[in-house]
Amino acid sequence: MRAVIRRDKRLVCDEIEDLTPGPGQVLVKTLACGICGSDLHALHHMEHMIETSRRGGGAPGTFDPTADTVFGHEFCAEILDFGPGTTGSLKAGTRVVSVPVTMTGDGVEALGYSNRLPGGFAERMLLSEALILPVPNGLPTDAAAMTEPFAVGAHAVAKARLDSNSVAVVIGCGPVGLAVVAMLKARGFGPVIAADYSPRRRAAAEKLGADVIIDPAKDSPHSRWEQFGVPMAAAAQNMARMMGRPFGRPVVFECVGAPGVLQSLIEASPAGTQIVVAGVCMVTDKIEPAIAITKEIELTFIFGYSPEEFAATLGDIAEGRIDVSGLVTGKVGLEGVADAFVALGDPEAHVKILVEPSR
Amino acid sequence: MRAVIRRDKRLVCDEIEDLTPGPGQVLVKTLACGICGSDLHALHHMEHMIETSRRGGGAPGTFDPTADTVFGHEFCAEILDFGPGTTGSLKAGTRVVSVPVTMTGDGVEALGYSNRLPGGFAERMLLSEALILPVPNGLPTDAAAMTEPFAVGAHAVAKARLDSNSVAVVIGCGPVGLAVVAMLKARGFGPVIAADYSPRRRAAAEKLGADVIIDPAKDSPHSRWEQFGVPMAAAAQNMARMMGRPFGRPVVFECVGAPGVLQSLIEASPAGTQIVVAGVCMVTDKIEPAIAITKEIELTFIFGYSPEEFAATLGDIAEGRIDVSGLVTGKVGLEGVADAFVALGDPEAHVKILVEPSR
Repeated sequence: MRAVIRRDKRLVCDEIEDLTPGPGQVLVKTLACGICGSDLHALHHMEHMIETSRRGGGAPGTFDPTADTVFGHEFCAEILDFGPGTTGSLKAGTRVVSVPVTMTGDGVEALGYSNRLPGGFAERMLLSEALILPVPNGLPTDAAAMTEPFAVGAHAVAKARLDSNSVAVVIGCGPVGLAVVAMLKARGFGPVIAADYSPRRRAAAEKLGADVIIDPAKDSPHSRWEQFGVPMAAAAQNMARMMGRPFGRPVVFECVGAPGVLQSLIEASPAGTQIVVAGVCMVTDKIEPAIAITKEIELTFIFGYSPEEFAATLGDIAEGRIDVSGLVTGKVGLEGVADAFVALGDPEAHVKILVEPSR
Repeated sequence: MRAVIRRDKRLVCDEIEDLTPGPGQVLVKTLACGICGSDLHALHHMEHMIETSRRGGGAPGTFDPTADTVFGHEFCAEILDFGPGTTGSLKAGTRVVSVPVTMTGDGVEALGYSNRLPGGFAERMLLSEALILPVPNGLPTDAAAMTEPFAVGAHAVAKARLDSNSVAVVIGCGPVGLAVVAMLKARGFGPVIAADYSPRRRAAAEKLGADVIIDPAKDSPHSRWEQFGVPMAAAAQNMARMMGRPFGRPVVFECVGAPGVLQSLIEASPAGTQIVVAGVCMVTDKIEPAIAITKEIELTFIFGYSPEEFAATLGDIAEGRIDVSGLVTGKVGLEGVADAFVALGDPEAHVKILVEPSR
């Protein structure tokens, strides 16, 4: 079958071995698979990424980042066939999504970052029957493929200790930031202040329900805290408490992942801010702990999502609590993936590009 | 009256103006006042410390770090006289402690870091009657003077999200680390693993109830997590959850405050660790966010304590839940303060030195 392969830090279209479903596995046809920012990073820096993940206890020792890899972990697929020991409760032809891991006799493979199993930039994949979820009737394939990136937003919001008084600032409106904006609104939190330099991404944040849209070139994302009732300094917050004027804990979602952003947020956020760090900064970064201490800042680093959050996100999209229409700004076949990686380097050009292997 | 004054980055004994209690204030005689690690830092780096605090929104614009300052914010004192508008409900002669702030007509002064009012390294002070707490009958003055540093531990423990399964590692057993150890045990949490290079400080941690004492020169403070049931990697933690073996969230208390410590903890702690940052690192520090993300580390920077935590700490000491005996390793009069600051530079020489201005 055909696939896009990462080989020698380039993306090439080539034939790879056909797949046979093992015990508990289903063979699926990939219908659509989003290109993730992590894929862009991994194309050139996979070795560093895996080394970092290993130091964090998060990547299996069996994965060889220099060997062939088929990316793609944001997919919607269609069941073709069943391996031994499956129940077949979802029939062939059913459209499904899954958390991007497949259980094998040799352990758990992370689809999209595996040498053994291809991810969604291949015509077919092997999924674990126990992990697949049927796409609720009528939800378009493109929308179902957004489950994975939006589940990251669901996890970020779950890790934020929000209440009905909370004020949220979302820094960066790439796919992760947009998912956070959408989830905050779907869960009834707000006001939500969203900031991005890109007009296209600001427009997407507005469509997803952000209450205030900030262009950081013109205005600070931190300019509205007091307008929404969050005093900046600890002394003013204590005074508000003494006066019986409760205010929500300020929460900032860092969805950029570039060096320097954390310190800029420590410096500019109100006292007591919880900074949920969803953007993945892959280089060593500098912070000033003494300022974080004076403000009692909390840095909550987050990663991934639980199977339950993934399933809930599919429901949010299918039942209209999150409207993902308009976020897919491009579609390519396997031959177009390499160019799409280049195009995604420009935040103004695209939000999300889907790969359709049979296109 | 006599006081030790910080002047030109040196400590000098000199006469300062006598004090007259203003509205709501009481005049007190300083009985004993501990020397804090912050005082050691402030002697040479006050300008930088205040600038950092101001950037964090925590220091009043009126304080001039280049002008004379009388340090001392860990005190026990005796009421001498009353200003206008006081109730006198606590009589002259009563021993009291107080959070180290005094309300004046010009705002709130931070005792020990003020140009207007002296801290506890002076024969007398002005306190706010509304903030003073009587020392419960019979509690020795030395023990009462430990309320302030131990309140820092109370706040650290309150900010940690602990439960009956939690395992706590305390890094650094100076006064802050010891206060954390004592508070963890007073609140019934544990096991508590305490680490310090100094034999004297390790002995103090053991006396305060730490369950495991680690000399980092010989063993890692992180060597016991699994022994106490906390898996290191996220995958192993998820497996434990699936098997119905709940485990407490790992919590690390950073009580050192030196550059590099945070990253070493991010690197060595189990997945999901909450690192409560009580040590004050005054220089820019480096962290690797990608590893903190992979592990879903939480950095909770904390500062000070609430008046309620301060009052509860006094009760903990007075009622024997915390035994502070043996922590005072030296006592000096005002003439001895400068030498005591030097002596405290050696962690093996002392735990806490009290200043007795009338000695």
